[in-house]
Amino acid sequence: MKPSLPQGTRDFNAQTVRKRQYILNIMQHIFELYGYEPLETPSMENLTTLAGKYGEEGDRLIFKILNNGLNEASKHEKTKTALENVLQGKSDINLTERALRYDLTIPFARYVAMNRENIALPFKRFQMQPVWRADRPQKGRYREFWQCDADVVGTSSLMMEAELLNIYHSVFEKLQIPNIEIRINNRKILSALAEVIGKQDAITDITIAIDKLDKIGLEKVCDELKTKSITDDAIATIIKYLQIGGSNEEKLIAIQNLLGATENGKLGLQEINTLINYLQQVNANCLPILDFTLARGLDYYTGMIVEIKTTAVNMGSIGGGGRYDNLTGVFDYPNVSGVGISFGVDRIYDVMEDLNIFPTTLNTGVEIMFVNFGNACQDKCIDYVQQLRAEGIACELYPDTNKFDKQMKYANKRGYPFVAIVGDDELKENCITLKNFATGQQQKVDYSELKHQLNKN
Amino acid sequence: MKPSLPQGTRDFNAQTVRKRQYILNIMQHIFELYGYEPLETPSMENLTTLAGKYGEEGDRLIFKILNNGLNEASKHEKTKTALENVLQGKSDINLTERALRYDLTIPFARYVAMNRENIALPFKRFQMQPVWRADRPQKGRYREFWQCDADVVGTSSLMMEAELLNIYHSVFEKLQIPNIEIRINNRKILSALAEVIGKQDAITDITIAIDKLDKIGLEKVCDELKTKSITDDAIATIIKYLQIGGSNEEKLIAIQNLLGATENGKLGLQEINTLINYLQQVNANCLPILDFTLARGLDYYTGMIVEIKTTAVNMGSIGGGGRYDNLTGVFDYPNVSGVGISFGVDRIYDVMEDLNIFPTTLNTGVEIMFVNFGNACQDKCIDYVQQLRAEGIACELYPDTNKFDKQMKYANKRGYPFVAIVGDDELKENCITLKNFATGQQQKVDYSELKHQLNKN
Repeated sequence: MKPSLPQGTRDFNAQTVRKRQYILNIMQHIFELYGYEPLETPSMENLTTLAGKYGEEGDRLIFKILNNGLNEASKHEKTKTALENVLQGKSDINLTERALRYDLTIPFARYVAMNRENIALPFKRFQMQPVWRADRPQKGRYREFWQCDADVVGTSSLMMEAELLNIYHSVFEKLQIPNIEIRINNRKILSALAEVIGKQDAITDITIAIDKLDKIGLEKVCDELKTKSITDDAIATIIKYLQIGGSNEEKLIAIQNLLGATENGKLGLQEINTLINYLQQVNANCLPILDFTLARGLDYYTGMIVEIKTTAVNMGSIGGGGRYDNLTGVFDYPNVSGVGISFGVDRIYDVMEDLNIFPTTLNTGVEIMFVNFGNACQDKCIDYVQQLRAEGIACELYPDTNKFDKQMKYANKRGYPFVAIVGDDELKENCITLKNFATGQQQKVDYSELKHQLNKN
Repeated sequence: MKPSLPQGTRDFNAQTVRKRQYILNIMQHIFELYGYEPLETPSMENLTTLAGKYGEEGDRLIFKILNNGLNEASKHEKTKTALENVLQGKSDINLTERALRYDLTIPFARYVAMNRENIALPFKRFQMQPVWRADRPQKGRYREFWQCDADVVGTSSLMMEAELLNIYHSVFEKLQIPNIEIRINNRKILSALAEVIGKQDAITDITIAIDKLDKIGLEKVCDELKTKSITDDAIATIIKYLQIGGSNEEKLIAIQNLLGATENGKLGLQEINTLINYLQQVNANCLPILDFTLARGLDYYTGMIVEIKTTAVNMGSIGGGGRYDNLTGVFDYPNVSGVGISFGVDRIYDVMEDLNIFPTTLNTGVEIMFVNFGNACQDKCIDYVQQLRAEGIACELYPDTNKFDKQMKYANKRGYPFVAIVGDDELKENCITLKNFATGQQQKVDYSELKHQLNKN
């Protein structure tokens, strides 16, 4: 049998694991500086928890887990009926009760609702875990990928929006990713647009269409709007809205003129202005670009929305989030406003790899390998490696008495900086021949000198 | 909708995540000291990779993932046929192509086989990831749980067995878990037993039956052996074998007498003696208990097998492993001998929680919360928290101007050691009132004194 991996999934070797860990450690450190606490939720959720939360397309992309024990005779009839439902595109708990986590937001909302008695509000949590989507794999899109989220629930203070944008800024600064663009909009502005064209009931259709602007272009967005029975006049207004440009100040004036008379327009503009004031105070370096064409696909956003890109690499969004006023409402816990951001860890990894900006000092593997000549030499080496490990120095004794060349080739392939040779001569002289792979230098040292050389490294 | 979790799964709050991270960090540190490199594999594998590798019961417990897009008309017929197969207890890729990782060993073997061209042998890797099993949940048994494995492939040196047993010892010593028992046996001894009773073809049946000794007792093991057409004479020999007791030395003599004449008996005894010699040299403190009743459920072991328990808590095995000579053979890469150990991270967590032996210094959350009085006070606090964060001190400004008592209650519930108060008076005097929650003490300090106090903490 020829082994293979499921499409869209990947193995991560030592180098990759260490690089990813570097990214996650920086995020975790910054979250903790801001008072966010770690949370982990199970990989599986009840399908009822996830279904219907990500829109029609999201529902299709959820990985569902087949119930176990379907071969028990008592279940056969129910299972067959369940399959009929599945074939019609519905889900049925008699075939699949559970599904894989699709994002970190809904499980977080479920957790907050389940633990409302024990949680001190405002509750600030971060979560770094993989999620799964049955999307068609392509560059920067995997079926298993890591997300890294920070959310606050239980406060509607716009200081939290400012804090989270600042966290975005701090993380990308620390990772040294260049040309980061933080783009924001506000769902109330989009609602105001729907209000102005007299189509408040079509807000979801309008949002979904605008969300595709980047991918399909203005003309096709208009085509899609036409199919949702938006009039030509209304589409003209939407085009005017989408073409608003210039500096943040110029855009704010244009929006004021177009939507400022509506209730939602007023609220949205007020929120944007308050947020920008906070940001100027917190960190003027992290001021975002106002982008009124930003829509974001998810239904639950109600206030600020945000998306992150770098113009240094062609890679789509590497982060996004927004304010939601009633995320936990669906779990019977209404009126808990929250705001959250998400980092696309795998895309960030890909960007850093493309730009070759991972620190070169990340490899923390073995520092020295002892060559194995067997017998008394081996005994002595066992003592040395145990002593070094007790002092916190990572090392290895080659486990077999293979040819010297083969052992050296192994040490070289693993990238060990030093090799130690303890043969009969060294045994007599009670010393170690230390070979530095980088310089090719070789010298006889005693144990304490060996330790000194390795610590210097 | 009332939110709930799938049976056998759990959420992990901040305290739990930190405690688990403490366990994983100790393991990772020791693995790296010994030259093991991190590896991560996807949560999903192709079902063909996993099926048939864990015995009949294992196969039943694999979580399978429903294929997506089954509602496409072109797939209906195949899907229905596939369901018929599933109802008969078979698997079918037209319904489920993928499954969740069941352990870390088979994915590791799959990885080694797929990457044989790039891997330097011997290959030492560690892997810390969750696995999923559709087992009936009970104390210490979950449907999603973490394993932590270390394996070496590409050498048959018994030094590796010694190294791994020493790693077991070092990890549990560092975690300060008392009364650890490392029990070992050798599959060649079990083969010798089958040889002596003339039932070499029944080695799997004998192993499976003996593996249940702890759970069902000697009598029922014998009953099970009878159903496998093992004769009464043979069963008498097996009983004699299972009743071997005394010190390691006494047990070795008894086994020598019972099985020493067979080829497998000779090999097994030789391996055990060599291993014990190595261990005496590496670390005489980690000498294991010879336990010839140890069998382990998995088919692929061929040499030493090991299991870890603590007698301090009633909790079953918290680790296990063994030597396998042909794990990658099934993936078309034969004759690569390896040996590995696994840590049951969740059970180790439960043991440490039961014994209350986690360090009390683990909480690394926020050190200080600033009370929020709004307006100019809030502005000043924003400056303070940003300054503290820039100096690496985790802190929080309460996001709303709620009543003082409510803010204090929040800080207390979150367990923050300090609260800072900056009201109108403090603003005028350019100082901060610092309240220590533990002592109740309150004092006015300037920013540099505040920093000093927090750094002391």
